Amino acid sequence: MIIVLNQNAAEEDVEKIKRKMISLGCEIHESRGTNYHIFGLVGDTSCIDPSLIEANRNVDRLISVQEPYKKANRLFHPEKTVVNVEGKEIGGGEFTVIAGPCSVESEEQIVSIAESIKESGAAFLRGGAYKPRTSPYSFQGLGEQGLELLKLAREKTGMPIVTELMSPDKIGKFVADVDIIQIGARSMQNFDLLKEVGKTSKPVLLKRGMSATIEELLMAAEYIMSEGNERVILCERGIRTFEKYTRNTLDLSAIPVIKKYSHLPVIVDPSHASGYWWLVEPLAKAALAVGADGLIIEVHNDPANARCDGQQSIKPERFKALMDILGKMARVINE
Amino acid sequence: MIIVLNQNAAEEDVEKIKRKMISLGCEIHESRGTNYHIFGLVGDTSCIDPSLIEANRNVDRLISVQEPYKKANRLFHPEKTVVNVEGKEIGGGEFTVIAGPCSVESEEQIVSIAESIKESGAAFLRGGAYKPRTSPYSFQGLGEQGLELLKLAREKTGMPIVTELMSPDKIGKFVADVDIIQIGARSMQNFDLLKEVGKTSKPVLLKRGMSATIEELLMAAEYIMSEGNERVILCERGIRTFEKYTRNTLDLSAIPVIKKYSHLPVIVDPSHASGYWWLVEPLAKAALAVGADGLIIEVHNDPANARCDGQQSIKPERFKALMDILGKMARVINE
Amino acid sequence: MIIVLNQNAAEEDVEKIKRKMISLGCEIHESRGTNYHIFGLVGDTSCIDPSLIEANRNVDRLISVQEPYKKANRLFHPEKTVVNVEGKEIGGGEFTVIAGPCSVESEEQIVSIAESIKESGAAFLRGGAYKPRTSPYSFQGLGEQGLELLKLAREKTGMPIVTELMSPDKIGKFVADVDIIQIGARSMQNFDLLKEVGKTSKPVLLKRGMSATIEELLMAAEYIMSEGNERVILCERGIRTFEKYTRNTLDLSAIPVIKKYSHLPVIVDPSHASGYWWLVEPLAKAALAVGADGLIIEVHNDPANARCDGQQSIKPERFKALMDILGKMARVINE
Amino acid sequence: MIIVLNQNAAEEDVEKIKRKMISLGCEIHESRGTNYHIFGLVGDTSCIDPSLIEANRNVDRLISVQEPYKKANRLFHPEKTVVNVEGKEIGGGEFTVIAGPCSVESEEQIVSIAESIKESGAAFLRGGAYKPRTSPYSFQGLGEQGLELLKLAREKTGMPIVTELMSPDKIGKFVADVDIIQIGARSMQNFDLLKEVGKTSKPVLLKRGMSATIEELLMAAEYIMSEGNERVILCERGIRTFEKYTRNTLDLSAIPVIKKYSHLPVIVDPSHASGYWWLVEPLAKAALAVGADGLIIEVHNDPANARCDGQQSIKPERFKALMDILGKMARVINE
Repeated sequence: MIIVLNQNAAEEDVEKIKRKMISLGCEIHESRGTNYHIFGLVGDTSCIDPSLIEANRNVDRLISVQEPYKKANRLFHPEKTVVNVEGKEIGGGEFTVIAGPCSVESEEQIVSIAESIKESGAAFLRGGAYKPRTSPYSFQGLGEQGLELLKLAREKTGMPIVTELMSPDKIGKFVADVDIIQIGARSMQNFDLLKEVGKTSKPVLLKRGMSATIEELLMAAEYIMSEGNERVILCERGIRTFEKYTRNTLDLSAIPVIKKYSHLPVIVDPSHASGYWWLVEPLAKAALAVGADGLIIEVHNDPANARCDGQQSIKPERFKALMDILGKMARVINE
Repeated sequence: MIIVLNQNAAEEDVEKIKRKMISLGCEIHESRGTNYHIFGLVGDTSCIDPSLIEANRNVDRLISVQEPYKKANRLFHPEKTVVNVEGKEIGGGEFTVIAGPCSVESEEQIVSIAESIKESGAAFLRGGAYKPRTSPYSFQGLGEQGLELLKLAREKTGMPIVTELMSPDKIGKFVADVDIIQIGARSMQNFDLLKEVGKTSKPVLLKRGMSATIEELLMAAEYIMSEGNERVILCERGIRTFEKYTRNTLDLSAIPVIKKYSHLPVIVDPSHASGYWWLVEPLAKAALAVGADGLIIEVHNDPANARCDGQQSIKPERFKALMDILGKMARVINE
Repeated sequence: MIIVLNQNAAEEDVEKIKRKMISLGCEIHESRGTNYHIFGLVGDTSCIDPSLIEANRNVDRLISVQEPYKKANRLFHPEKTVVNVEGKEIGGGEFTVIAGPCSVESEEQIVSIAESIKESGAAFLRGGAYKPRTSPYSFQGLGEQGLELLKLAREKTGMPIVTELMSPDKIGKFVADVDIIQIGARSMQNFDLLKEVGKTSKPVLLKRGMSATIEELLMAAEYIMSEGNERVILCERGIRTFEKYTRNTLDLSAIPVIKKYSHLPVIVDPSHASGYWWLVEPLAKAALAVGADGLIIEVHNDPANARCDGQQSIKPERFKALMDILGKMARVINE
Repeated sequence: MIIVLNQNAAEEDVEKIKRKMISLGCEIHESRGTNYHIFGLVGDTSCIDPSLIEANRNVDRLISVQEPYKKANRLFHPEKTVVNVEGKEIGGGEFTVIAGPCSVESEEQIVSIAESIKESGAAFLRGGAYKPRTSPYSFQGLGEQGLELLKLAREKTGMPIVTELMSPDKIGKFVADVDIIQIGARSMQNFDLLKEVGKTSKPVLLKRGMSATIEELLMAAEYIMSEGNERVILCERGIRTFEKYTRNTLDLSAIPVIKKYSHLPVIVDPSHASGYWWLVEPLAKAALAVGADGLIIEVHNDPANARCDGQQSIKPERFKALMDILGKMARVINE
């Protein structure tokens, strides 16, 4: 950390700050220029709350050199993390595809989609049971019944299941029933929820909040990991910008950036990122090309009559064609 | 709602959409231009989930005419809402100031701050007991003990208390102990939490999420109101933009916009909006001038040693001076 | 266009608006609901300035159905535009790569870079002569001398040259000397400059402004095209967001969106989008995968000593390796 | 400046960077931690182009401590700048109001508006002659004829005039005819234009670009000032965000931030910031309260029939009422 002091700070105030820093375990390197007076803090500063220093009126600015995350930081864990779920690896080199409908609607729906995407090569089945919806008047998911239907589909197809947990009070059921617990974009900074999943040993699919920086995403992962659960898979799903033709702006640069700063696997959700079915295919191909470890895609057998998000769901036939081209591309890229 | 159809939609597909709309209770007005084919839906469409219509591949675009919120909508409730809390009104014409430290730290701290801000004219005491922090390594608040200290300060000063609820499981305690339940920016779309506070009759201070549109803020209010609790106070606290000199960008235009579209009271948080103590005073004055119903401000007796957010807290003397000038300005503006 | 009228508009005011619309050449379809009164305007409204209608105090809102661009609109020109430059096609199916240094520095530099990128398969040579720099104290380009060196490099290698025009007063020289005139991101809404290049018959490479919507980019193209020059190539180069790990956020969704709404070719600039050399390769591959017509990439033989933007330039060897993998990917995708 | 080196940088590469920094005139303070190796550069670094350093592959990151602007920097010019125009001061303590129509339409229009706003207390007359419009099909202003009409209005009322310059080629006419040259938001980084007005001694009203940071605004001012013209007045006019109820988001925090970092006067444009006439009054009051030196407001006698931007223009009567309340507020605030 670099502390830039106010030029007119009294000598005794400067001494006070110095003593505080030393008490926090830092070694101080001091530089005085004509216009600036600077302290460089050497040592591990990742656990120092910046606001404790910035609050001092004699501090002009605080500049972080070290990233604020530790367990999620590649610097301290150079080896990449591979999350193994029921024998399938995420982050291990294989391109992993999670697919399924926005929400579970019926046994027939979820089972038939599961069967068709499995045949096309998807590794995991997704489906919403508890749905976070912007309007209280929209369909909120089948809840517990949705979970049961997902389990049924898993039983019939052997595909592990991924679904979103919205509240800490359902954690027990999710740990028992689900293979990967999804934390949605709106919950990325629901810190109580992060701590709860951190106390389990279930793999967690953590989606980037729609206005979260990559640093904040990694800090959310840190919350989970600091409780002991290091099986975290990150997911880029589009950020909020001024552009209006798309629902969100998919930030594909985030993939190589995350690979540089963290050891965690990261996948892409082209369906929520764009909001339109016709954008899913080109963005899925771009996600593979940019180096993502996989995808999570919405597939529905009858989008026009889906109970939610049909406009961003692709049909099973289109999904099959997409999987084919992704397979060919992956071979060229990895060759 | 306006449905723009694809030009090359087959006649039978157009008929299908028509029938679906009629089944949803809409009357349809149809217009065909050279390049466009449009359905205008007449009737109350606020409860129709747009994605149910957009999902149809023959729909090019859906344009909402009516706002998606009903109970929070001024159109249906032209009278402004005044929230009465322990004999004090918010939204009734008086400029209401809520003040106190970022987090409750000790009995001495909270009681002495409460006494001094009361003397300066603050109506409510704020103080965090459960704190949402970006880093798991930062101080997370005193929790239940913090709540007890707030109650003590209320007992000694008679000031009603405002504090943040982060998880649905503590709702009982908050209803029993607190005068206004605050829903923080990061929880604005924690829909389970919104539903829980909606089932109580406690006043709710709902902060705008840092990347929430005003429409989304009003939809979050709608969640609370649709459960039966209409005592909602909105709070603008800055939005995330590209600007780097401030923590967030305070969106003061939101105040007159909310007044136009909704009947709910709205206050401003200049402390979180700016992130710096020296910006609090000018922004507080601007909030009054723009028509806000009040403020929520961080005041700390010793910011340099505060356990969080000291850099955005002002001292009691400065708060007193601010209250004086706000009082004078209010008299001129209301005259 | 849809005009939403204020509910309490007097009948005579409504009639006035109707007459004004009819005088602008529109046919009106009227719908009255319980809470809304709407006019749908049928006919070509792309040339109606929305503010002429919104200014009326009885108009609550104006909703555009038709895109405001005509010549750039795929609806009116279903065939895709292929720009032919000195025998090389952009937008015709081939993946076209423009490469070269941020700024021209010397004969040796520009010629040696040109030779090496040509060998690797680049079709065009780029190089800045006039440089828009954020600081007046930074290197502003070699100016006219830079243009001469570019011409020399073209002579020696046969590669057509692309360089940025910043002011209308140099248009004559650029038309005479340059093969593709580049309009930079900061000039995207320099309307006088757009009109000037619109009066020539030179191909124009139009970069998206850093906070321009796709619609605004297409409107900038419309400015050029409305003057008679339809040889416009669009370029996505990253937009400004809150994310801090990258200089800009590359919006790859823009590529398929532009392909849907416009017939113009579109390429990607991964160098400016990311700001870092190590992000160029993954983003270039993603650009190909998402369907772009080509790339513009910064290549420098000695980035550490480049006179500008060395941190986002890749070396010729890395460029060669990138071209190889792009070639292989293109074959799979087009197969 | 702080240079963070890659940990695995070879000793000889580190030495090379050191020598380069010393050759650029910097003194170096070196710190080595367990995980970091840092150079602190002491001395005036405002003229060093950061990309010259960042380009080095052994540099992990560059952190600026000093602001990149010098002449616009309060640190080096603690006294605030007062711009005197024809006997009227901007930035001197008085609250200065510039008003007038979006575009000059006719003699009768501009003269009658000028007379009425003068009576209400406006100090300057604004009016567009050359208009930057998003669509080539919209009214582009009366051009030279507009300038003549502005001069006529000045002659009849004695009010100095402010109008926008879009191209360097008209600089001579503007210097001769106009009292304050306005540089519009879209031209804020038209560096050739900035240099041209920098060579004159005319006061310049420099509007913040719609996605410009405050630092970039001050760097644009630096361009003008570095050419010799220090009579720069800044203008906040709203920035682009994700919010949709307003055209732009007025960033009022920018006013006290600019006052802290710069000595230049700064005014606010509530008309363009909001895009709606009903937001002008509350935002104008907030601008005064937050500490702005004045306003630029669009006033039109017949907004419904204005040739542009009528929806954001207020009528002369409303302007008069606004000036009254602003006068009263100013007395309380300055008392």
